[in-house]
Amino acid sequence: MKLYSFPTSSASYRVRIVLHLKRVPFETATVSLPDKEQRQAAYLKINPQHRVPSLELDDGTILTQSLAIIDYLEQMHPEPPVYPSDPVTRARSLAVALIIASEIQPLNNSSVTEYVRDTCGMDQAGTDRWMADFMRAGFAAIEQLIDGSHYAFGLEPSIADVCLVPQVFNAHRHKVDISDFPKINAVTDVATAHPAFAKAHPSVQPSTA
Amino acid sequence: MKLYSFPTSSASYRVRIVLHLKRVPFETATVSLPDKEQRQAAYLKINPQHRVPSLELDDGTILTQSLAIIDYLEQMHPEPPVYPSDPVTRARSLAVALIIASEIQPLNNSSVTEYVRDTCGMDQAGTDRWMADFMRAGFAAIEQLIDGSHYAFGLEPSIADVCLVPQVFNAHRHKVDISDFPKINAVTDVATAHPAFAKAHPSVQPSTA
Repeated sequence: MKLYSFPTSSASYRVRIVLHLKRVPFETATVSLPDKEQRQAAYLKINPQHRVPSLELDDGTILTQSLAIIDYLEQMHPEPPVYPSDPVTRARSLAVALIIASEIQPLNNSSVTEYVRDTCGMDQAGTDRWMADFMRAGFAAIEQLIDGSHYAFGLEPSIADVCLVPQVFNAHRHKVDISDFPKINAVTDVATAHPAFAKAHPSVQPSTA
Repeated sequence: MKLYSFPTSSASYRVRIVLHLKRVPFETATVSLPDKEQRQAAYLKINPQHRVPSLELDDGTILTQSLAIIDYLEQMHPEPPVYPSDPVTRARSLAVALIIASEIQPLNNSSVTEYVRDTCGMDQAGTDRWMADFMRAGFAAIEQLIDGSHYAFGLEPSIADVCLVPQVFNAHRHKVDISDFPKINAVTDVATAHPAFAKAHPSVQPSTA
């Protein structure tokens, strides 16, 4: 299969982590976000929403939306699972993933921050504050939800860690201070050291080699 | 179990549909969003993120995030399923749900539109345009993804319909014109007529009785 992605895209990073965790072989097609390749005709045929990632299966089927792609990989390659086996822990791990995917990341997405800047007329400081305010509100909720004893929930990585590590990377990249969330920082340190998470890191992707 | 919700909250509406589809008995605790009850101390003990819905299980466990709650209900009450059995169709139905939950709804949420108005200083026309622009971009992507022959994907309702019907209700409520999306409108007509969807409609919830 082929993953259309970009190194620093946090949604792409989530899918890379799961592909490496499950040891699913894949090739990478880099879609340059700085060059706006996601809005060019060649990519719009793959994903009319002009977003990364997209996963192309061997029969040419295209799947979109990172959490839907991860759910597909969980169905087709169940081991190791990224959904915890205990139903309540599974619901909590998914809730953390969804706080990131549906409350933090959408408001940090460049299509939204560009609208805040260009259409709402906010200056750079205001746009930075927009990003920091929504990011920190989501992290504050997550800090209360995770148990943080090792991974976000227990001794194995789960969908919560898969989403948390790229969002923390994004916070550092945008210089948002999250030093006051000790559980999030401890969990991120543990997960970042896992070999599958390390292979998925933006700094070691093909286009930045 | 008890569902903390509000009639017109689209995330609450999603969970109500699934509870009725699966015939899971539940009571409703209405959290008045117009009265800002979601920000009051009594509710913050239930959900520190001051959002609805929250699902309280019979042992007092609280689950949050509508799609995580729906996934929990799917695990515990598998019939009828809201995840399609075919893996690719399941991924596509989830992708539609995620476009709504992580691209449209977050940008329509009152905490965000109030920020756009009060902090970014947009007037009412600008705030309305913000809502319409992001809602229509998401609907345009969904119009291309669904097959729309009956329900969004085939002859049974799935997670795509569960998220689509409340978002279409929300579009009408905010007077966003979506008449140019024929598949979405046809699917919504079919799904809205289903008895479980009808019982979950905002107009027939306890607090508006």
